[in-house]
Amino acid sequence: MAFNKPSLEQLAIGIDIGGTGTKFGIVDKEGNVLFSSEMSTKKHATIESFITDLHKNITPLIDQVGGIGRIKGIGVGAPNGNFYTGTIEYAPNLPWKGIIPLCKLLQDEFKLPVVLTNDANAAALGEMKYGAAKDMKDFIMITLGTGVGSGIVANGTLVYGHDGFAGELGHIIIIPDGRYHEGTGKNGSLESYASATGVRLTTLEFLKNSSTPSLLRDIPADELDSKKVYDAAMAGDQLAKDVFDYTGKILGMALANFVMFSSPEAIILFGGLTKAGDLILKPTREHMEANLIQVFQNKVKILVSHLKESDAAILGASALAWDI
Amino acid sequence: MAFNKPSLEQLAIGIDIGGTGTKFGIVDKEGNVLFSSEMSTKKHATIESFITDLHKNITPLIDQVGGIGRIKGIGVGAPNGNFYTGTIEYAPNLPWKGIIPLCKLLQDEFKLPVVLTNDANAAALGEMKYGAAKDMKDFIMITLGTGVGSGIVANGTLVYGHDGFAGELGHIIIIPDGRYHEGTGKNGSLESYASATGVRLTTLEFLKNSSTPSLLRDIPADELDSKKVYDAAMAGDQLAKDVFDYTGKILGMALANFVMFSSPEAIILFGGLTKAGDLILKPTREHMEANLIQVFQNKVKILVSHLKESDAAILGASALAWDI
Repeated sequence: MAFNKPSLEQLAIGIDIGGTGTKFGIVDKEGNVLFSSEMSTKKHATIESFITDLHKNITPLIDQVGGIGRIKGIGVGAPNGNFYTGTIEYAPNLPWKGIIPLCKLLQDEFKLPVVLTNDANAAALGEMKYGAAKDMKDFIMITLGTGVGSGIVANGTLVYGHDGFAGELGHIIIIPDGRYHEGTGKNGSLESYASATGVRLTTLEFLKNSSTPSLLRDIPADELDSKKVYDAAMAGDQLAKDVFDYTGKILGMALANFVMFSSPEAIILFGGLTKAGDLILKPTREHMEANLIQVFQNKVKILVSHLKESDAAILGASALAWDI
Repeated sequence: MAFNKPSLEQLAIGIDIGGTGTKFGIVDKEGNVLFSSEMSTKKHATIESFITDLHKNITPLIDQVGGIGRIKGIGVGAPNGNFYTGTIEYAPNLPWKGIIPLCKLLQDEFKLPVVLTNDANAAALGEMKYGAAKDMKDFIMITLGTGVGSGIVANGTLVYGHDGFAGELGHIIIIPDGRYHEGTGKNGSLESYASATGVRLTTLEFLKNSSTPSLLRDIPADELDSKKVYDAAMAGDQLAKDVFDYTGKILGMALANFVMFSSPEAIILFGGLTKAGDLILKPTREHMEANLIQVFQNKVKILVSHLKESDAAILGASALAWDI
């Protein structure tokens, strides 16, 4: 008999720690971000000063919703965040080295329960709680940004694996002996092709290995990025279109492999590259289907996240807090 | 206070339906196969005659353990067996076409609860209940026989996926545009390399594309099989050793991808190819490690199943019955 909402509906805090900045906000159960703000990550040389400032910045938001009594808990998404241990472990893009006991530090500061996972897992939880994967029990989230991140949900639960680090799908080898990845030292990983960085590298290769006329030849190499390749493709540039076809071919093959692994209901894509729309989605879908064995064909949806990009990271992190 | 075992300890029936024969047995909770037997699958043109004969053949075993009152249920492993629906769907190697409501037919005949899954998933459950994966919550089972099968356990549960068909790791694409697979019509799948069939095809390719002297050149192509390649390698034949190195390289790369997907505690290998021991395991381990990003390195065990091959299929199927 829920005619009246209780006046003190529980809320959750979501914190997304990135290499440059940290976003945070207070979220209700329907996924409305009631209040949010952000601060610098990289200006904090020590984790202690980061935590102190974070507390200082979040406190006014908590006051605005009526005090800490309304907050169920804090969910945090961070690179190399380990759900099991509550620690951030050797994150190359964060200013704090080694193993950081993030959950403990935040709990001591806020006097609230805290749960941590990596940013792509948090994104998957956000989609399951508020987004395109609502009510799904089996799906895979792929974030296509500067890099490629992922979160896998099976049987209604995030797959953390034995050590808490499952779901590093950006690093699976898709082209044996393929393109070198400077960050990992490995060859042929999905991330080295199907990311904004990968699109840029593919374009440079295509420009070098062909003499096809292209709008992109007028752009200095160090100014070329995936957005400019997109603009060229939309203006009808064939080489730019070929770059997206090639990227979609590789991404589609990888998605087929993921489907044959965990047989998801859908694959949810998020991030900068998805803005290329059908330029990348069409070849991706085609090549996914072409590489699937019959039993999986024409079953698995490829969906693009419809969460607002500015809210998604906070929503994803906050989704962790509801199951505390 | 379990000083005395109850005299009527519960037992389970395991049935493994293969293309040629069907094995069945009665198993206790410790994984002892108390009684077992087998019968032909392919001689039964209709599923009805198969079920009738199966009942006729299992009844004497049930009588030997003291009657149906001691049986908790029946677990069945079968190709294309769907856990959710209890049906066998379009299994190319079985005599019965279309969708077979196997669980319903067996329940009606035996008056016992019946659970079905595919053979590789059953093998994974067998390892978790009685074998090398005892007490593990996250592992991957890979069966390396004529083909490549797999079962994935995450968070202590088999991953069935949205449609019940998860874990078709034999069909992931590992060499883009690689070897053609006659059964699926796809190119470059793991199964077309890392199976007994794959080892044979690799050997034929290596013999054709080189003039290296080899013991294998004396064997007519239609008599060549993975066992003969193994024998040649053990006798010091370099080409035969190269075949196993190549197979292990591809298998190792695939295992690295699986690790980056679900971060298992161990990968359990089972089946004919594992008899090649270090000939295949050494390159597999090396190439798995070489393709893993740092966070996964030197963590994941590759174990060979120690279940008796003659018992394993029955044990795996029976493991399904305990959770009924």
